[in-house]
Amino acid sequence: METMKAVVKTKPEFGAELQDKPIPKPQPDWLIVKVRATSICGTDVHIYKWDPWSADRIGAKALPQILGHEVAGEVVEVGSSCKRIKVGDYISAETHIYDPGDLTSMLGAFHVGKNMKILGVDYDGCFAEYFALPESICWPNDKSIPSVIASIQEPLGNACYAVLGEDADVAGKSMVITGDGPISLFAIGVARVCGVAKIIHLGKYDFNMEIARKMGADLQLYTNQTTAQERLEFVMDHTGGDGVDIALEMVGSQDSINDCFAMVRKAGRLTAFGIAPESPVPVDYNNGIVFKGCQIHGINGRKIFDTWYRNRNLLASCRLDPTPVITNIFPLSEFATGFEKMLERPRKSAKVVLFPDKAEYEAAAKFMKE
Amino acid sequence: METMKAVVKTKPEFGAELQDKPIPKPQPDWLIVKVRATSICGTDVHIYKWDPWSADRIGAKALPQILGHEVAGEVVEVGSSCKRIKVGDYISAETHIYDPGDLTSMLGAFHVGKNMKILGVDYDGCFAEYFALPESICWPNDKSIPSVIASIQEPLGNACYAVLGEDADVAGKSMVITGDGPISLFAIGVARVCGVAKIIHLGKYDFNMEIARKMGADLQLYTNQTTAQERLEFVMDHTGGDGVDIALEMVGSQDSINDCFAMVRKAGRLTAFGIAPESPVPVDYNNGIVFKGCQIHGINGRKIFDTWYRNRNLLASCRLDPTPVITNIFPLSEFATGFEKMLERPRKSAKVVLFPDKAEYEAAAKFMKE
Amino acid sequence: METMKAVVKTKPEFGAELQDKPIPKPQPDWLIVKVRATSICGTDVHIYKWDPWSADRIGAKALPQILGHEVAGEVVEVGSSCKRIKVGDYISAETHIYDPGDLTSMLGAFHVGKNMKILGVDYDGCFAEYFALPESICWPNDKSIPSVIASIQEPLGNACYAVLGEDADVAGKSMVITGDGPISLFAIGVARVCGVAKIIHLGKYDFNMEIARKMGADLQLYTNQTTAQERLEFVMDHTGGDGVDIALEMVGSQDSINDCFAMVRKAGRLTAFGIAPESPVPVDYNNGIVFKGCQIHGINGRKIFDTWYRNRNLLASCRLDPTPVITNIFPLSEFATGFEKMLERPRKSAKVVLFPDKAEYEAAAKFMKE
Amino acid sequence: METMKAVVKTKPEFGAELQDKPIPKPQPDWLIVKVRATSICGTDVHIYKWDPWSADRIGAKALPQILGHEVAGEVVEVGSSCKRIKVGDYISAETHIYDPGDLTSMLGAFHVGKNMKILGVDYDGCFAEYFALPESICWPNDKSIPSVIASIQEPLGNACYAVLGEDADVAGKSMVITGDGPISLFAIGVARVCGVAKIIHLGKYDFNMEIARKMGADLQLYTNQTTAQERLEFVMDHTGGDGVDIALEMVGSQDSINDCFAMVRKAGRLTAFGIAPESPVPVDYNNGIVFKGCQIHGINGRKIFDTWYRNRNLLASCRLDPTPVITNIFPLSEFATGFEKMLERPRKSAKVVLFPDKAEYEAAAKFMKE
Repeated sequence: METMKAVVKTKPEFGAELQDKPIPKPQPDWLIVKVRATSICGTDVHIYKWDPWSADRIGAKALPQILGHEVAGEVVEVGSSCKRIKVGDYISAETHIYDPGDLTSMLGAFHVGKNMKILGVDYDGCFAEYFALPESICWPNDKSIPSVIASIQEPLGNACYAVLGEDADVAGKSMVITGDGPISLFAIGVARVCGVAKIIHLGKYDFNMEIARKMGADLQLYTNQTTAQERLEFVMDHTGGDGVDIALEMVGSQDSINDCFAMVRKAGRLTAFGIAPESPVPVDYNNGIVFKGCQIHGINGRKIFDTWYRNRNLLASCRLDPTPVITNIFPLSEFATGFEKMLERPRKSAKVVLFPDKAEYEAAAKFMKE
Repeated sequence: METMKAVVKTKPEFGAELQDKPIPKPQPDWLIVKVRATSICGTDVHIYKWDPWSADRIGAKALPQILGHEVAGEVVEVGSSCKRIKVGDYISAETHIYDPGDLTSMLGAFHVGKNMKILGVDYDGCFAEYFALPESICWPNDKSIPSVIASIQEPLGNACYAVLGEDADVAGKSMVITGDGPISLFAIGVARVCGVAKIIHLGKYDFNMEIARKMGADLQLYTNQTTAQERLEFVMDHTGGDGVDIALEMVGSQDSINDCFAMVRKAGRLTAFGIAPESPVPVDYNNGIVFKGCQIHGINGRKIFDTWYRNRNLLASCRLDPTPVITNIFPLSEFATGFEKMLERPRKSAKVVLFPDKAEYEAAAKFMKE
Repeated sequence: METMKAVVKTKPEFGAELQDKPIPKPQPDWLIVKVRATSICGTDVHIYKWDPWSADRIGAKALPQILGHEVAGEVVEVGSSCKRIKVGDYISAETHIYDPGDLTSMLGAFHVGKNMKILGVDYDGCFAEYFALPESICWPNDKSIPSVIASIQEPLGNACYAVLGEDADVAGKSMVITGDGPISLFAIGVARVCGVAKIIHLGKYDFNMEIARKMGADLQLYTNQTTAQERLEFVMDHTGGDGVDIALEMVGSQDSINDCFAMVRKAGRLTAFGIAPESPVPVDYNNGIVFKGCQIHGINGRKIFDTWYRNRNLLASCRLDPTPVITNIFPLSEFATGFEKMLERPRKSAKVVLFPDKAEYEAAAKFMKE
Repeated sequence: METMKAVVKTKPEFGAELQDKPIPKPQPDWLIVKVRATSICGTDVHIYKWDPWSADRIGAKALPQILGHEVAGEVVEVGSSCKRIKVGDYISAETHIYDPGDLTSMLGAFHVGKNMKILGVDYDGCFAEYFALPESICWPNDKSIPSVIASIQEPLGNACYAVLGEDADVAGKSMVITGDGPISLFAIGVARVCGVAKIIHLGKYDFNMEIARKMGADLQLYTNQTTAQERLEFVMDHTGGDGVDIALEMVGSQDSINDCFAMVRKAGRLTAFGIAPESPVPVDYNNGIVFKGCQIHGINGRKIFDTWYRNRNLLASCRLDPTPVITNIFPLSEFATGFEKMLERPRKSAKVVLFPDKAEYEAAAKFMKE
């Protein structure tokens, strides 16, 4: 049996180990991918830390399990009933393994159905030389997109869907985007290239605020150096007293949720993307929703594959340059350093990408320098 | 100076008086309407009771003021700069007097702008033989619609907009509608004639539950005889375990809000119409919005004049019969009895319509019997 | 090998034969259905007649081939990789066998992709006791819907998608619907139950005009007894001089296309469903499209499975009664009589349904009488 | 009576004259604007040439009449019933003077109503030091936008509405744009800044093709050096064989219409903006509309004021730089040279802007050099 290197969660405690594991074989409608680049998501960090969410969601019984779900790689083997994807295809993986018989799937909202399984959470993930995934969630990449970029399309897709919402009507509008994480930073870039005419960013870490400016933020506010009232007045001052057309809540904190409901204008749109540490959350129901006549779009995942298509086009055309958000790259074997970067506070990183293969790593290092 | 009978709020306390008042003269872009029928809104009841909201919103200094804003009547005089409406037109009044220079107005969302004034709240209303209103909010009625029906188009418009939401995509879908008030009952009727295929009504008063059935509710739940868990299970049982496509929150209570966020399916739509007694309101932000990927439409007023157009067509074609909701009619002089009916608990009424003119009253009485 | 009765196109000429054929076995992602009811489509009539379209589209080399694609039946065997559908499920078949790797499929528009295959055209169809189809196009029926009704959901879906268009925004609007065929008649029914407030029907055969009235047409015009100018004036007279909000072109003739482009109001919507006998077609591009600022929705097939979902709900709730359109039912063995009915001119039929099983036929005969 | 300089169409023949005319006085809901910059539209050229369209649309009886409708200026006097706009406001003019009582206006589609009047066609225009217009069509400009830019917002609005269509869903999509005129060139710029990921431009004049590249065209085809088949193959080659997501027909010629219907992908969108020299136009109805399942948006004018709002934001933020399209500026007195530039073939100009005031002209000259 052939083996591969993989980052494995072995015990219900902080950390993970690099182990030799058998290279997986595909079920009939799954396929096997040789990983070229794979990036670390906040979900991976939760599992790495083995916080209460992971202990509950995954559970000690499921271990050992390979981490990771953000990826770009080459298909090396396909199951007998695969139809769309062929050996040699350069693909990325949608994380959400949907149930095709679920009503929301049958109605086209594949990303939020019942019985959803998650790559790297319910199945072995892609922090490895090879991994298995169902054909249904494979997205064929444009060959011109480097693997380091292709690997981050999944979180970029979150950003793209959050910015565009259900209707993709953003051109010439104003937008507040909250948060310092990679998805907030990607969202600023997407908003910028998709014609959002005024981007107001709310963050708190110098390192990430600078990336936000590179991605295209027009105006910025430090949430840890201002009051809610000051932030609201700032936004009103820069929007003729009306508030922004669209507010993207990407933090999940009470303060950020309050900011967004206050800052969005009448008949505007609020994207609810951030997950609150505790729910229910007190929300200004009367003034923030009913009297405002606004629309709230709960955003989870990405549209399959509408978001992927737009992402691919924006990347392949070089309209969108996500490289400022990719702050660190490492060989897969140095995954622990990658996780350390992700855990550092105040933040000194955004997106961290890992490479099982040395040549890929070196090519990415060269690309990132240019 | 000619005078007219009018129902006037004279003092900052419970009640109102029938008084002789001068017939108003129009400003250049206003016009004068002879009232044929006028119905009592919950807002009128607040003002009649002079509850804390009225004391704060209107204030004792504004008194005396004529009540009322739901109306049908005939234009008897137009200001010098009126353009659309002519003497003799049979009109109803949109309550929201929008500021044409406000951004949301300029973008077409006339119903939720800044600087909004309300007929019967910021100006003398229509519980009178005549009243004045700006031409901008006049809607020309179809002559075939009796005045008793035409007068209730404003709350029917609330119902129509709440049911249809921003996109009017309801055909063949399932819907929960909460509440016993006239707007909930109208909403059931609108949903029924617009192709909602399963209407689940949540109410509590026998009298109104029966009207709801006449209006087209398929299934009903008494909220005062069931637990939240029982209600949720009932809805899940009748929707294949998915929840309803659309939930209309029309009460504003914590229980009703919770019901709606729980009952709407993934990728569904929730209409937030009811006003909460206190805001902020705890909302299941994570599971009810973000993970559900649903859309929330805050609904206030009616689309000007999109909703009025649909309403008119549904009424003129007799597709929609709102008469079961019109439970009481009185001459205007018996307004106090009308308010008593509205205040009775348990509810024994829905919509109450008043008529300044005896012949109109008698015609309506005859119509309602048929 | 077990055999079954099937209606087979054996030769490239008018007609078909009832033959014994082997019961098919499923490929891994296909399944086998025992047919309970199957209805005759215009496409089947083309093939039956072996007109130039069939000779070109199917070709003599493909014969013998079993006809039919409108169906309801019970799953009796599933291929090894089927996931959604189980033996015993009561299903209907979407006719369009889409390529999952096609871009439009990946973007959710499954019904218009490249490489589309058609049941009963590219594969053996369902005018038989059993037939095979891919799991991907199976729709699970509500058990409460009789097979005679369930079989016509495919053309009813055409009607539903044509009426609702891309946005399903029809409530309270006015609509012109052209044509005498079953899909026009179904469309009238769908429009009626989905809140279209004024339905103007343009047809020419007495028999079908009467069905149109039963389905809910408010106003009718004989196209063979009026001039284009008379028809336009009639529509303008009944729409306040504006034209209809929505025009459904379901014939494809130059006259009908001209009528629809003339009758739709400014900023209205025109559904292009009918197929022209010859294309290109002269269209009033300037006044009918550009200056009118209207939207034209090309409609082909049905949304998979959004339309099916709405259809099922409208039928299961009995909101929509399609039985007036089902004018004839026969045992499968009397298929030739069914085709005769379809070919008769002036039309004396609309939808014809066939039943391989005698008991099913008798149950349907009883149901249709009630 | 005070007088002003104005470019007046005096006789029903080629040309116009600079004359002294009285400065207009406002009606109650009109206002007077001191012109800072005014640009020449193709419509002005038609009238200047006095072609058959002008002779028919305006007629000799209406002369003398002042030309022009694209403008930026300062309000110097307001009528007695004006509400939104004040003396000193810096405004531009929507050309379409809509009837507020028309149904389409009442439904929010102000730009395509009945009884539409056009500035500079039905009324004296703005090729003058002062002109009058109704308050209803005034758009308040952002003070930071130079008058030379603010004056071209009306045709830029055409471009913006044509690109965004009814739904503004363009981000990450591919687009064909046809034509060499200023609106085609503006459309390329709008598409570029609004996230269209691949812009394929079809034109024929070197001078304008170069501007198109500056505005952001990714790929170009000379329509006078290629066959329809070559153009289609080129587009298919650059879109994976699917065709473009969106095609903007901005010429109106049979060839350009054919190109666009052929090049748009299944389930795509075609914007019909160009006006055909003769209508009806043969259109590939079956394959280009019905079987393709595409949507056609007839686009005329601009959304009032949704398009203006987006335009203003894109310009004020400097996201969109329209200056490459502004090829010539002249003092108003040199209007004849401006018209000559517009009439030159092969084209050697795009947008020409005129300035009644010398200081404004010099400021614009300086701005354009930077």
